[in-house]
Amino acid sequence: MASRLLARTPRTTLKRQAQRGSYDREQVHAILDEALVCDLAFSLDGQPYAIPTVHGRIGDTLYLHGSSANRALRALRDGARACVTATLVDGLVLGRSAFHQSINFRCVILYGPAREVEDPREKRDALRAIVEHAIPGRWADTREPNREELLRTLVLAIPIEEASAKVRTGQPVDEDEDYALPCWAGVIPLRMQAEPPVADPRLAAEIPLPEYARAYRRPGSRA
Amino acid sequence: MASRLLARTPRTTLKRQAQRGSYDREQVHAILDEALVCDLAFSLDGQPYAIPTVHGRIGDTLYLHGSSANRALRALRDGARACVTATLVDGLVLGRSAFHQSINFRCVILYGPAREVEDPREKRDALRAIVEHAIPGRWADTREPNREELLRTLVLAIPIEEASAKVRTGQPVDEDEDYALPCWAGVIPLRMQAEPPVADPRLAAEIPLPEYARAYRRPGSRA
Repeated sequence: MASRLLARTPRTTLKRQAQRGSYDREQVHAILDEALVCDLAFSLDGQPYAIPTVHGRIGDTLYLHGSSANRALRALRDGARACVTATLVDGLVLGRSAFHQSINFRCVILYGPAREVEDPREKRDALRAIVEHAIPGRWADTREPNREELLRTLVLAIPIEEASAKVRTGQPVDEDEDYALPCWAGVIPLRMQAEPPVADPRLAAEIPLPEYARAYRRPGSRA
Repeated sequence: MASRLLARTPRTTLKRQAQRGSYDREQVHAILDEALVCDLAFSLDGQPYAIPTVHGRIGDTLYLHGSSANRALRALRDGARACVTATLVDGLVLGRSAFHQSINFRCVILYGPAREVEDPREKRDALRAIVEHAIPGRWADTREPNREELLRTLVLAIPIEEASAKVRTGQPVDEDEDYALPCWAGVIPLRMQAEPPVADPRLAAEIPLPEYARAYRRPGSRA
């Protein structure tokens, strides 16, 4: 059984503000699940890139997908190192000094390696996880990928092992002498909110809005 | 005067779905301004990293800051290549097939080089831009950085020249034969919403909530 804590490595150990670091597997999973997108960072010919992409998770594995022609995914499949970063912004922190303005956030930084998912069952499960990650309940309503679509799609799996979370919460931490300043201080919370769904104009009038779309909300958002 | 369009380079030219690419300077600026955080990607000893960070913009220059001990910022200052990616998620796209689930998003990908901001006036202006980027009106209320805080802060400037935006908007684009499926299709819009500010418990009761905090909202969010 997987340990509750992820093993620290030199890459995942925070060097400053170590109190913000977390190696709790459940917290890492929760942040990956709440983030709709992540950035996939890689290096080609010495040039770093970070490309936003969607993801899905099954247990201790993160799945990414894209076109089979995608040079980033192909490079990772062929052994290039990867870094996946997912970030949630939870609020603005208004400190009494410019130096102590901050944001409340949660992020996960995960390091490769990536492997191509070739087994047909795992590939389908991974694609389902990516669809369900964004909209729980959606997969069963959609036409599943056909043979050509599967061929055109490259799916990568990254073990969620060499990873850490970094989290800031709560009120500003000001310099002692600044608490006497006549300056408002506090937090402005931010939440990702869903608005009412907008039907495709080509949708037949008799097709009802499914409950998972009508009641859609992101984790942490208000009902 | 800067051209309205950014010059394309091999790195910034989209290879697939080229219709999603934009080299419009104003659109690139608007995305950078709306995004609260970006990911700074860099490579150290062949390992790619992407680290979330806040940013600010003055004209055609993006500013990043961090601890003077931050190894990423120091590496960039010393000539390491950078990629800055800022992403906004605008909605979920519910296509009729799993293959055409998508998200509406806007992102900017910007490539270095970075230079250290050493001029005291530019450094102050950059830090002000970073504070004002998150909360317009905040800088004038805070204590400005003192000499020691400035020494502890490394500010980098990246010209917003080798950059492009990538944007997806609107309804799903399904396969012709899938439009007949009895499957709801459309878009669920998403917006970052501010909630009521929460005062620091250490705040003196007579200090009023400033208007910029009371009425805070992100661009694109509802009043």
